[in-house]
Amino acid sequence: MIAEVISVGTELLLGNIVNTNAQFLAEKCALLGLSMYHQTVVGDNPERLSQCIRTALDRADIVIFTGGLGPTEDDLTKEVCAQVMGLPLKEDPHTRARIQEYFQNSIYKKITENNWKQAMVPEGARVLDNHNGTAPGLILEKDGKTAILLPGPPGELYPLFNQQVYPYLQELCPEKILSRMVKICGCGESMVEEQILDLIDTQTNPTIATYAKTGEVHLRVTAKAASTEAAEQMIKPVVKELKKRFGSKVYSVKEEETLEMAVVRLLKKHELTVTTAESCTGGLLAGRIVNVPGASQVFREGFITYSNKAKRKVLDVSKSTLKKYGAVSKETAREMAAGGAFAADADICIAITGLAGPDGGTEEKPVGLVYMACYMDGNVTVEKYQFKGNRNKIREQSVVKALDLLRRTVLEGKGKDKA
Amino acid sequence: MIAEVISVGTELLLGNIVNTNAQFLAEKCALLGLSMYHQTVVGDNPERLSQCIRTALDRADIVIFTGGLGPTEDDLTKEVCAQVMGLPLKEDPHTRARIQEYFQNSIYKKITENNWKQAMVPEGARVLDNHNGTAPGLILEKDGKTAILLPGPPGELYPLFNQQVYPYLQELCPEKILSRMVKICGCGESMVEEQILDLIDTQTNPTIATYAKTGEVHLRVTAKAASTEAAEQMIKPVVKELKKRFGSKVYSVKEEETLEMAVVRLLKKHELTVTTAESCTGGLLAGRIVNVPGASQVFREGFITYSNKAKRKVLDVSKSTLKKYGAVSKETAREMAAGGAFAADADICIAITGLAGPDGGTEEKPVGLVYMACYMDGNVTVEKYQFKGNRNKIREQSVVKALDLLRRTVLEGKGKDKA
Repeated sequence: MIAEVISVGTELLLGNIVNTNAQFLAEKCALLGLSMYHQTVVGDNPERLSQCIRTALDRADIVIFTGGLGPTEDDLTKEVCAQVMGLPLKEDPHTRARIQEYFQNSIYKKITENNWKQAMVPEGARVLDNHNGTAPGLILEKDGKTAILLPGPPGELYPLFNQQVYPYLQELCPEKILSRMVKICGCGESMVEEQILDLIDTQTNPTIATYAKTGEVHLRVTAKAASTEAAEQMIKPVVKELKKRFGSKVYSVKEEETLEMAVVRLLKKHELTVTTAESCTGGLLAGRIVNVPGASQVFREGFITYSNKAKRKVLDVSKSTLKKYGAVSKETAREMAAGGAFAADADICIAITGLAGPDGGTEEKPVGLVYMACYMDGNVTVEKYQFKGNRNKIREQSVVKALDLLRRTVLEGKGKDKA
Repeated sequence: MIAEVISVGTELLLGNIVNTNAQFLAEKCALLGLSMYHQTVVGDNPERLSQCIRTALDRADIVIFTGGLGPTEDDLTKEVCAQVMGLPLKEDPHTRARIQEYFQNSIYKKITENNWKQAMVPEGARVLDNHNGTAPGLILEKDGKTAILLPGPPGELYPLFNQQVYPYLQELCPEKILSRMVKICGCGESMVEEQILDLIDTQTNPTIATYAKTGEVHLRVTAKAASTEAAEQMIKPVVKELKKRFGSKVYSVKEEETLEMAVVRLLKKHELTVTTAESCTGGLLAGRIVNVPGASQVFREGFITYSNKAKRKVLDVSKSTLKKYGAVSKETAREMAAGGAFAADADICIAITGLAGPDGGTEEKPVGLVYMACYMDGNVTVEKYQFKGNRNKIREQSVVKALDLLRRTVLEGKGKDKA
């Protein structure tokens, strides 16, 4: 079956916002085994919108719309789509009651007249209750074609889609599609692909798709089968094989678990506390750790020591080390990590010092040179990286590598004797 | 004149990546005064691509393509577009030489045969040298229609467009378009719009467009005129009026200056140093300040005091304050700011303590409650916020408000007597 996305909104045509909805829907459709050949963005203009709808209904089985369901006169998606499909609009008492209720619970007590426009529904439509706004989602079916109309704000679209549209589409698709994510850190995309070329080349079901993220590679294993259980059985051995090939480089097999979540989970499991000593990343590493709800169990404080003076005062990095080797050196990174652990009385300290640029690079120490060190149980592991890209890119990559170094230290270092 | 964007790439249809290129191009086209009514995403399929090109050339004057210019067999944009426009491909010796040179300077010394495909150019095309990759940009003109072919990677597309396509399009457009940005902080979008409703309603040239960002509102003033100078003259009084209406809430009138850049610029100007004392934001505020190249001149160190113990030890927050008022209180925020300034020996300290959730909220102190305090010259200003949204949203908003509090403190506090 073929799906297509039509995003309606002048703000997309003016470049005011990025079309993240299209990416979200495209990924979900791929996950469902639906083919997608086109995505279109069009404004709130009835003639152009109606032309786009005709074209899409002609070449696809399912057309998913986002945007243009609001209460203003500009919002036309429902009206135009119903007209093209020949479905008259009628007031839906259930939706009317929901709108009334929504306004009673909101800070805007007064319902303006145009809000009732949102209670009008094309004949025979399936109404999807929107728990985060007043515009309901709608599913229209006619002549073997399906139009799915969803609100534009991601905070309304995502839950509506996941809770009500995804199961509907799953029913439509004769085969069951299931997928599992294998998340890898510390290995570039091309290296990952090389190591699984035989799997990618020979397997058509399950398939393996690679997604490159900053410092990470995600592998999505997707199987189609007659039942969910059968798909699960097909996925299992592939995930097992990937785990075997990449070993400890696999940090998670959970769709929603980020690298920092995996790290915090690991620290909790081993009952370890961590602190951070950051120079060029200036707090971004700690910020990532604190992203995780409940991080307070493993993280109590962190240091941002941007100047040499702060490195000396707070982390007790020796004056002679800074003078002899410089702030960006393995020696300084090592002392930062050891000093940080002592100052925070933490089990582990992860330290970063580097040149994020754009200025300050030399031939010997170019921009992008970053040292990171991890202290645990009296041992310090130091790693050297040469990153590419602009200031922010260098800092982002540093944070990911540091999280991974921390993860590996916990995995490997557990059980080592205190020095 | 009407412009249209066609993004070519299966990775967009699979939802592997977000189409940021379309947003970039749409914003630039709006800036040039070009109308845009459609954006299309299509895969690397010759029939579908050729159909999309025909449709776009039919309804637009200028069609801008991204993607599909690579060296592999999948990359078809140039071939299909040349075919549709009836322009035969010929080898361009200049581009061939550039590809040779590119590989000599890269880590991949060997040029594979398929790379020479990129030296083939449609007859009469204008070749745009790509300084960040091997695929040149191309401008094809025929029968009053223009096709502009650009590589997909943003790192290649952005500089190519800004340096070579933007000036070309400026020449094409009979009128000169000029725009200036007025960036506002500390005022919601609806409040900003209310204060300039008269300007928006009555003015058609220059126009004022509002863009809402997290904690900020950006106003773009755009004028069309026969010459750049005339457009500049039209913009000036509007920018002046906006500055008058929003006063010190305007933090910048520079397109590329972020809030943190404006803050660092201000601190440098007044020769002040700042430190940070963060609880719930866990380093994100310091991370934003360190985003700015040269931040080391004003920022030497920062504190992440997530636990109460760290607040006491590092920032000297008193045990009784924490016990009596709790960690999330104006009293604790106040002591964090004063203690941080002392500990770092900085002129200013900005402190944040709050409940980012998802757990830990009470009726009295709900999730989203954040206190921030700014110490300067012996005075401490404390502000209380109740933010909405998830954990990350609350932390992001806190950082923006803190940067703005810091900015206002410097603007207002300069010259105050030491306490």
